[in-house]
Amino acid sequence: MAQLDQTHDPKLESWVASANGHPDFPIQNLPLGIFSLSGGEPRGGVAIGDRILDLPAALAAGLFTGEAAKAAEAASRATLNLFLALGPGPRRALRMRLSELLAQGCPEQGSVEPCLHDAAACTLHLPARIGDYTDFYVGIHHATNVGKQFRPDNPLLPNYKYVPIGYHGRASSIRPSGVPVRRPKGQVKPPDAPVPSFGPSQRLDYELELGIWIGPGNALGESIPISEAAEHVAGYCLLNDWSARDIQAWEYQPLGPFLSKNFASTISAWIVTPEALAPFRIAQPSRREDDPAPLPYLLDEGDQREGGLDVELEVLLLTPGLREKGLPPHRLGLSNTNNMYWTVAQMVTHHTCNGCNLQPGDLLGTGTISGPDEVSCGSILEATLGGKNPIALASREERRFLEDGDEVILRARGRREGFAPIGFGECRATIMAPS
Amino acid sequence: MAQLDQTHDPKLESWVASANGHPDFPIQNLPLGIFSLSGGEPRGGVAIGDRILDLPAALAAGLFTGEAAKAAEAASRATLNLFLALGPGPRRALRMRLSELLAQGCPEQGSVEPCLHDAAACTLHLPARIGDYTDFYVGIHHATNVGKQFRPDNPLLPNYKYVPIGYHGRASSIRPSGVPVRRPKGQVKPPDAPVPSFGPSQRLDYELELGIWIGPGNALGESIPISEAAEHVAGYCLLNDWSARDIQAWEYQPLGPFLSKNFASTISAWIVTPEALAPFRIAQPSRREDDPAPLPYLLDEGDQREGGLDVELEVLLLTPGLREKGLPPHRLGLSNTNNMYWTVAQMVTHHTCNGCNLQPGDLLGTGTISGPDEVSCGSILEATLGGKNPIALASREERRFLEDGDEVILRARGRREGFAPIGFGECRATIMAPS
Repeated sequence: MAQLDQTHDPKLESWVASANGHPDFPIQNLPLGIFSLSGGEPRGGVAIGDRILDLPAALAAGLFTGEAAKAAEAASRATLNLFLALGPGPRRALRMRLSELLAQGCPEQGSVEPCLHDAAACTLHLPARIGDYTDFYVGIHHATNVGKQFRPDNPLLPNYKYVPIGYHGRASSIRPSGVPVRRPKGQVKPPDAPVPSFGPSQRLDYELELGIWIGPGNALGESIPISEAAEHVAGYCLLNDWSARDIQAWEYQPLGPFLSKNFASTISAWIVTPEALAPFRIAQPSRREDDPAPLPYLLDEGDQREGGLDVELEVLLLTPGLREKGLPPHRLGLSNTNNMYWTVAQMVTHHTCNGCNLQPGDLLGTGTISGPDEVSCGSILEATLGGKNPIALASREERRFLEDGDEVILRARGRREGFAPIGFGECRATIMAPS
Repeated sequence: MAQLDQTHDPKLESWVASANGHPDFPIQNLPLGIFSLSGGEPRGGVAIGDRILDLPAALAAGLFTGEAAKAAEAASRATLNLFLALGPGPRRALRMRLSELLAQGCPEQGSVEPCLHDAAACTLHLPARIGDYTDFYVGIHHATNVGKQFRPDNPLLPNYKYVPIGYHGRASSIRPSGVPVRRPKGQVKPPDAPVPSFGPSQRLDYELELGIWIGPGNALGESIPISEAAEHVAGYCLLNDWSARDIQAWEYQPLGPFLSKNFASTISAWIVTPEALAPFRIAQPSRREDDPAPLPYLLDEGDQREGGLDVELEVLLLTPGLREKGLPPHRLGLSNTNNMYWTVAQMVTHHTCNGCNLQPGDLLGTGTISGPDEVSCGSILEATLGGKNPIALASREERRFLEDGDEVILRARGRREGFAPIGFGECRATIMAPS
């Protein structure tokens, strides 16, 4: 079982009253991010209830020593790259100390209190400078659902159960939750059109993904063995890999998706640590008895035993019509990270098995994580069968693909009997009309 | 005709004697790069003959004023990103002033001389921090040759003459000329094998490409019109996009090449400016009468007239056997940038037509630029027809793919009647045995 300690105690409460029972940020979570106050410099902080602990301020107040101070210092800059580079030891020490400082009855409460800001008054930024962004394809139901639209009899390609398929995405266009996304233009060619045309995408989609923040990483020419891969995972976020399906269909042969994906990706702004997710580890979930064994470089007993994650993933839609009528967002899909065919450690090890170097602040995406049925789809392409079956909304609107003004909201929750539930904070963005 | 001025005068000579008649760096070239002296900090410099002009030293000596000083200042840091961001105006002013300072008869020669270092004593670094690296596929003969190996009757896919096909590559593993490349390991599955296996690639290849350095770039959600694309191109280099063909064949469906490419890319260390290449501009070369017209967003009269480049590209192989016997490198292929189906401006505009943001220091690759015949192949996959026809070397060795100890050398030369020829400097690297 993954390392559990007093920071995971479900009975632990915080003197920050809003943290207790908070859906995302109780004292058992303590995710890190980069925030700024109006006019101020971006700096590191920790989410606790509806407040943010200002790490440079807490450091200046002398609240950290030793390894925890080292981590707090690295997390006090304008990006968290230095913190991510430190690896698990200092990160755990910081968590332990943050848990003490924010716990009910902490004798230093008086010194910590001045370091808290109202989250509502803060702006959240990208938590790190992202060097390279890689998107995988480990959601086996997504791969199957999409494959079926092209190859009904043989939806999964022969390499799927051997190779954790991935490709490089665009780092420059990743934005934190809340930044609007402009509908892309591009070349499209419907099957019945003789030649392609250029214009705004008519088949705009979201993709519900888990994001993985890379920690220390490896030197070029070296590899990360599967038994050590977990040490190089510094945290998790939500990732919406916006996709223009019409552009994708015309451009993707032979080198893969390009302009259909690189116009924007949205991530949740908080880095949820592996320590916070320790209670939600599960055995490698998706491989069945009759699936081929992973090749030896991807096989590790510990990873098989607890390399999986049981985190609920939800995608919701708020349209202009729903907003106008005061109706709640429509749930487009409810899935779970247990629909991943490959573990995060397998993704990391595969990525480096050829000597490719991962660096602190690199971001991996899992690819769309759909569940096995129609209410657990992670993309609208799957939910509407490529636009054939529109989704009916309570506002009497319907959707085949996303329309301008639509807001897509991703949420994630770890829940397990005997532990405090935690969340990731929201990953949301609204579609703007094309320029 | 692209802007030509006194800096292009073929009669211009430098008081740096080695510059006159230098195959790469006569006074008509003046490429920028980042160098360091033993133990010193990396900083900006200009190649002139077999020497390097130290830009921070020349700036401190008061040799620049106005726009040229602004450019020299931006080019005096540890990377050239700030310089690339400036755009054409300051870059041209700097070129003009550098040409004066280094020309025969310059009254300030005495002040410039102490700012020169022997290039042989300097280490060259990557010239910029590369945010994102995108590789295109604009070499139409390469696309045709490779396509033929899969689809003999219909080698070019239907989108090729409409879409400048590209995909995202790995920025972290790009290294300057001279850094050895470790043979990658990976999953391979020969057609006759029942299951894949893991081991060192047996089909290691080079790819002869032109690299393009992005200048100012665009904001997310905006596009660069084709008429303005040239302003966002800050320079050129050589690019060897090493490729493991056996890994590629097994992994690339459905999302494109990944581990088969991202283990290493090698670039020449000097940024050759658009001004230096102005004499070698030609009309858009590869489109034939019966090819479809580009969609309007990719069509510009000026670009059609002089958006092409006439630069010779050469790839050479030096094996352990050739080295041992004192034999010269074997020429694997001699090609030319006039084999590009799309212009650089079309690549830039297509990349941003969906709002994707390009940033100063981003790198684009053209994709392999092969010529139409067997002596102009830009990859060994083409030259040996996938390993079927081995290359015989003067050392009595033969090569189907690259072997450990092999060194691949790329060279580029602009040559045109009435102008001084210029080169790019070498792009070379040796294959190391797998770890």
